[in-house]
Amino acid sequence: MNFSDRLAEQIRKKNNPTVMGLDPKLEYIPSSIKDRHFSGNADPFKAAAGSILEFNRRLIDAVHDIIPAVKPQLAYYEMYGTEGLRAFCETVSYAKGKGMIVIADGKRNDIGSTAEAYAAAYLGDTFLNGESAEAFGADALTVNAYLGFDGIKPFINLCESREKGIFILVKTSNPSSGQLQDLVLSDGRAIYEVMADLVKEWGNTTVGECGFSAVGAVVGATYPKQLSELRKRMPKTWILVPGYGAQGGTAKDVAKAFDNNGMGALINASRSLMCAWKLEAWKGEFTIEEFDRAARAEAERMKDEINMEREKI
Amino acid sequence: MNFSDRLAEQIRKKNNPTVMGLDPKLEYIPSSIKDRHFSGNADPFKAAAGSILEFNRRLIDAVHDIIPAVKPQLAYYEMYGTEGLRAFCETVSYAKGKGMIVIADGKRNDIGSTAEAYAAAYLGDTFLNGESAEAFGADALTVNAYLGFDGIKPFINLCESREKGIFILVKTSNPSSGQLQDLVLSDGRAIYEVMADLVKEWGNTTVGECGFSAVGAVVGATYPKQLSELRKRMPKTWILVPGYGAQGGTAKDVAKAFDNNGMGALINASRSLMCAWKLEAWKGEFTIEEFDRAARAEAERMKDEINMEREKI
Repeated sequence: MNFSDRLAEQIRKKNNPTVMGLDPKLEYIPSSIKDRHFSGNADPFKAAAGSILEFNRRLIDAVHDIIPAVKPQLAYYEMYGTEGLRAFCETVSYAKGKGMIVIADGKRNDIGSTAEAYAAAYLGDTFLNGESAEAFGADALTVNAYLGFDGIKPFINLCESREKGIFILVKTSNPSSGQLQDLVLSDGRAIYEVMADLVKEWGNTTVGECGFSAVGAVVGATYPKQLSELRKRMPKTWILVPGYGAQGGTAKDVAKAFDNNGMGALINASRSLMCAWKLEAWKGEFTIEEFDRAARAEAERMKDEINMEREKI
Repeated sequence: MNFSDRLAEQIRKKNNPTVMGLDPKLEYIPSSIKDRHFSGNADPFKAAAGSILEFNRRLIDAVHDIIPAVKPQLAYYEMYGTEGLRAFCETVSYAKGKGMIVIADGKRNDIGSTAEAYAAAYLGDTFLNGESAEAFGADALTVNAYLGFDGIKPFINLCESREKGIFILVKTSNPSSGQLQDLVLSDGRAIYEVMADLVKEWGNTTVGECGFSAVGAVVGATYPKQLSELRKRMPKTWILVPGYGAQGGTAKDVAKAFDNNGMGALINASRSLMCAWKLEAWKGEFTIEEFDRAARAEAERMKDEINMEREKI
């Protein structure tokens, strides 16, 4: 099934258009987990990776039946070296085994021949002297299109042939995203609008039965006005929306990412789920040891809050 | 010593402004190496990684005394999964041990907090429950600044505090680089010129005694006109120039990246060194088994050819 249809089906089935970001900093993980891994381990990178994997598994166990997808952020695995990448790889398998869609957040980009290698790494097969196998095997990948179409084409090829998905950076959630993205061309379009137009065009070949393409966009919740404009500008594009929760985006802000049928957007929360036990809303309810139960409670609350806004559309 | 001064010193000492790209596809590697690794190994990813590492070591052994730096392209390691990353990690150590500067080509980019994790991974230390250690320990990293300053600042912090370097994508070497990068703003500047102006500004705090900053730029040899303009526009910026050789850039093209003193540029060659034995210029001189000797011969030829152009400036 087309990636886009798979995503739509999961969102409908769970009645939940959200994704759990897995950006597991060691400081988020209870000492009870870390102590166990660090005390029996001479290699601190192995111990860190083991802690992260256990933390991720407990989060996935806690929410897999109510959240459609996870989005592990590669930077937080790469910082633990090859052992961190192993934890990433096992997190991907574990989440897939639990029926979740996995969006690798790597914002990869390069010239065509090299983009082919990234596409193979995250979405395809790697040729290995006669045989071939999946290196990381994610369902989708975030990518950066500063290099134009030939750097994106290898990923789109796998959206077509392997039912994978990509999300291209359009308007990012960070404070200085406007420094480049908001600049205005001589034809009156902002750069993020140019990118949106490219995403729309590049997605034409992978529109699923649900009406959306496997070539999605990333637009931050922290810029609700642009989010609203971009929703209209890219009617067949899934919008992956970071910036809800810890970065300041509200349910009302993210609601602008949905179309008139309440579809077409996937709202990410990372810190507010991973560290839900710390939130003001759950004060006194959970200890750090219960981070997984807290994540589930917060996931339910987030779902209800966003669905309430979706119903108002 | 500031990264920029270290680079300048190496280039002067070896009288060679080139860098060897290490993008090791399995198909480049002699069967004799691959057979040995694949026959004794149940895990094909381990076998591929072992082949790559042996190939890289032989290339490094062959040229380390005449080429200042290597640039491993991360995509070609990530495609072999965690084992590929291990080969990357060991390639970095090996090249550093041989006195070479290591530029990790990853084109990483993200919002500030995540860029911090990438910066730690490639250029800094990772905190590990009380202690800290280097994950990959490269000297420099290529980055993509579509997200603006807050996504770049964490890398610049390590240029300042840890004497590291970065190279920011300005005008890339690929055919469709102009699709976004050549668009013209209402103020008359092309996007790649805007990026160049940002790189210049962001590099102000890390200018070394050699007169160049630790914040460099990537400009492809395949666009010699823009390369020439950008050299003037960023007078204190190292320009890392891909696109020489296999991608079509000539010595005359890349010469435009140097300033009036013949400094300020680092010319990359990947395929033309890794597969030098296949080049028309060396026809009949080397077999695939002698790929390392061929790489050295080609490295000498490339150096002489580029230095001849440098002297004409």
